[in-house]
Amino acid sequence: MLSDEHYMALALEQAELAGQCGEVPVGAVLRLSDGQLFQAHNAPISQHDVSAHAEIQVMRAACQSTANYRLLGAQLFVTLEPCLMCAGAIIHARIQRVVFAASEPKTGAVHSLYQVLSDIRLNHQPDVVGGVLQEAASTQLKDFFKARRKAKKNTHFV
Amino acid sequence: MLSDEHYMALALEQAELAGQCGEVPVGAVLRLSDGQLFQAHNAPISQHDVSAHAEIQVMRAACQSTANYRLLGAQLFVTLEPCLMCAGAIIHARIQRVVFAASEPKTGAVHSLYQVLSDIRLNHQPDVVGGVLQEAASTQLKDFFKARRKAKKNTHFV
Repeated sequence: MLSDEHYMALALEQAELAGQCGEVPVGAVLRLSDGQLFQAHNAPISQHDVSAHAEIQVMRAACQSTANYRLLGAQLFVTLEPCLMCAGAIIHARIQRVVFAASEPKTGAVHSLYQVLSDIRLNHQPDVVGGVLQEAASTQLKDFFKARRKAKKNTHFV
Repeated sequence: MLSDEHYMALALEQAELAGQCGEVPVGAVLRLSDGQLFQAHNAPISQHDVSAHAEIQVMRAACQSTANYRLLGAQLFVTLEPCLMCAGAIIHARIQRVVFAASEPKTGAVHSLYQVLSDIRLNHQPDVVGGVLQEAASTQLKDFFKARRKAKKNTHFV
């Protein structure tokens, strides 16, 4: 298996694609235990689907491909700390290991606002690593929101 | 608008359908502010989709139909207290009101294990009503698990 940074770099490419579609730039890569890779990005606006965060998109693709709603032994790489919805899905899928880049202080459910993935009352606790390529992910997000604010401002004064 | 019991009875019918497919019997009904209704049931096993809980299924259907990832003014009726994943999605969708039947002591994220829908740190708090047709929903779930245990036991001794 390649390094965490390798898979996170792929996730950052997915996040870039999301940003190009006007979606908040978050990308995810899922690696099954047999080495199969799935890649997806945040797409709720374009897909008309409130649940279409990058993590759910990539887990759904892997579930469809393996014809199984559980993804035992899988590793998930995502550019932003998962929210409550995605953390819940990660537990349902029995993901073995979660690697994320930037923290999300307002809504993060791994270590910021909630600590869902280490809650021993729930029936699964994946291994978790945070901060992998954090700088690149944070910059990508900041640049996206800066450009969006600028675009809105320009629209306002036209 | 009809009574909460009316919509919950429809959700219980959906839960019954889920049970007939071998899925845990949970059903949901979503009512948009214009009166449009959507109905769905729990289907992760049959749909090969870890996110296919009744609530996500019905929200996704409504999002697709309205071409909008937010469901402002919508009311969600579900036969079991939503889990973390579904509670997170409810907030993302800005559901106005959530009505559920039975509580889920082990994984419920509305009032049992977590109180996500009343967390003022998050940017939306729907109105919540619990316990509507609770008895019927609890009986449905108990009967399902009892039958499943019996089937497993019989298989074991054949």
